[in-house]
Amino acid sequence: MTLDDVLARIEPVDPGAQRAARLRQERLTKPPGSLGRLEELSIQLAGIFQTERPTIRGKAIIVAAADHGVVAQGVTGYPQEVTEQMVLNFLAGGAAINVMARAAGVGLTVVDAGVAAPLPEHPGLRVVDVGRGTADMTQGPAMSREQAEECVRAGITFALEAAENGADVIGAGEMGIGNTTASSAITATLTGRPPNETTSRGTGRDEQELAHKTAVVERALEVNRPGPADGMDVLSKVGGFEIGVLAGVALGGALARRVVVLDGFVSTAAGLIAHSLCPKVTGYVVASHLSVEPGHRIALEHMGLRPLLDLEMRLGEGTGAVLVMSLIEAAAACLSEMATFAEAGVSGGESEEAE
Amino acid sequence: MTLDDVLARIEPVDPGAQRAARLRQERLTKPPGSLGRLEELSIQLAGIFQTERPTIRGKAIIVAAADHGVVAQGVTGYPQEVTEQMVLNFLAGGAAINVMARAAGVGLTVVDAGVAAPLPEHPGLRVVDVGRGTADMTQGPAMSREQAEECVRAGITFALEAAENGADVIGAGEMGIGNTTASSAITATLTGRPPNETTSRGTGRDEQELAHKTAVVERALEVNRPGPADGMDVLSKVGGFEIGVLAGVALGGALARRVVVLDGFVSTAAGLIAHSLCPKVTGYVVASHLSVEPGHRIALEHMGLRPLLDLEMRLGEGTGAVLVMSLIEAAAACLSEMATFAEAGVSGGESEEAE
Repeated sequence: MTLDDVLARIEPVDPGAQRAARLRQERLTKPPGSLGRLEELSIQLAGIFQTERPTIRGKAIIVAAADHGVVAQGVTGYPQEVTEQMVLNFLAGGAAINVMARAAGVGLTVVDAGVAAPLPEHPGLRVVDVGRGTADMTQGPAMSREQAEECVRAGITFALEAAENGADVIGAGEMGIGNTTASSAITATLTGRPPNETTSRGTGRDEQELAHKTAVVERALEVNRPGPADGMDVLSKVGGFEIGVLAGVALGGALARRVVVLDGFVSTAAGLIAHSLCPKVTGYVVASHLSVEPGHRIALEHMGLRPLLDLEMRLGEGTGAVLVMSLIEAAAACLSEMATFAEAGVSGGESEEAE
Repeated sequence: MTLDDVLARIEPVDPGAQRAARLRQERLTKPPGSLGRLEELSIQLAGIFQTERPTIRGKAIIVAAADHGVVAQGVTGYPQEVTEQMVLNFLAGGAAINVMARAAGVGLTVVDAGVAAPLPEHPGLRVVDVGRGTADMTQGPAMSREQAEECVRAGITFALEAAENGADVIGAGEMGIGNTTASSAITATLTGRPPNETTSRGTGRDEQELAHKTAVVERALEVNRPGPADGMDVLSKVGGFEIGVLAGVALGGALARRVVVLDGFVSTAAGLIAHSLCPKVTGYVVASHLSVEPGHRIALEHMGLRPLLDLEMRLGEGTGAVLVMSLIEAAAACLSEMATFAEAGVSGGESEEAE
């Protein structure tokens, strides 16, 4: 399938199943609406899986890592080699995402989407051979349009594979020193907000360095002038390889009619790219948590998404996405498995009368 | 053990283990603080379990149900028999708490703490034989002090049994038509706030009925004058049998050095009673979610607790408590299982220099 085929084949979520799910929610043994946002979520799941009784079988998280040429501008507090070191940590099972995925029974796929240092071959590592880190976006485009498309296609493939292997919920996590700078540029472009609103300190920076980071984003946008109506143009000019892969994960997840779980700011910037390429994607997207990055809220609002958790996290790696998966399972289980008033012989107030 | 013995034997959480956990958090392979509230939570767990590497083995939820004489005042939208019907639903496995506990691997104990209708014997039902519903608190005390103490002692026993059976996390859930009215009276008394701030519509009521419910709470407080410094007096005069049992669950959980997870408004009113009897209890308490009941926030703030979730839920039954248990597991797992910078060979910025 070409990328255009994929975009054309993504279907909207099923409004009929959502209507049926809404009616079913009213008949379940609880006051109407008392499960709050879990009920909304369950109705989204019904639309995704085209059934009023959705079930979640498997869960996967795809963590894509890559490096960013813009680190040459001194935008981060950590040296670039941390990207490589953290990928090795992922492969050794010692990072937060490993621990949380294990605890929650979530299958983890680690993707080298373009880490600057050559990584050893590893059975647990998928490789997208597109380049060893992006170019410095303050000097020109971060990557070519061909590279951008290759990343997105790879992400689609990973999501389709995860779905094929039984994942009904697919999370999008990332690692990449410098990638909040790229995400800030993407978010500013696609939401139309100025870089000083979408840029924050990122990992381990003080207020003084924030002004510099904002100026770097402004320069990147000035030099490249990414087209706000063309997600692929934005990705290629001010994006990152791992962000392209995760945009593909979102598209592939939607194509396969699976739940796509976004994580924090960078993951959501990838969601913005996917949304720009195909707005129907957002019907499949669950926003897991609200990062402390201010640009995150802007990106989510642009897509009409409301995060489920607010735990003041800012790690990335897909940690927020994995945390929320148990809530997704609970939402599906309540809708599918709870007794109705009639089944349980419970006096149901309004709902009973409505029947 | 007498109740006084229990109160005397509850120990504070361990500050040494918390210090060690804080140091360990700084050495783990992530930017300091980037796991946000999960880090705070992990440090609390270290204090509870007296180790910098806590593990969560089992999880339990204790759901206590009882009826309330105050329903004679017309404070609820559901008939009293719903309490009984829902207990039967719990025993049949069809309620939200059943479904969510199953999905999350949480062991469920259902307690008849004083349902008005006689329930059939059932292997899954524990009975506290203290009375078939409280008296109407607008006419005098809801129960005697002896009954109140019996409920609390029973709850302590249930928590100790759960701990004995391997639960490291014990949630407190409830069912009882009329119990938000009792919780409003308890919260007003123990926090010193007026009933119009602690009373809300409860389950399925409109604004008009709210004024009546508030007036009922005011009358109950006037008639009984519960002593704000004596939790047992408050429980007996304006409480409920299930609330007494859950106060005991909190005390028993703390005595056994387990995590006590409060659910919504009613469960937290029980927490207030436990806190009044022994303030050290709150070191063991995790506030799971913020209910839409306004009195809930007041009760949590009084104990210095901050809920982890805000999902606009208002069901009770322990559903919020069960939802948060996967976050507790994730917090413990990250603290205990993540690699340190040194172990993983990751450049750790400040933390590395600090070693």
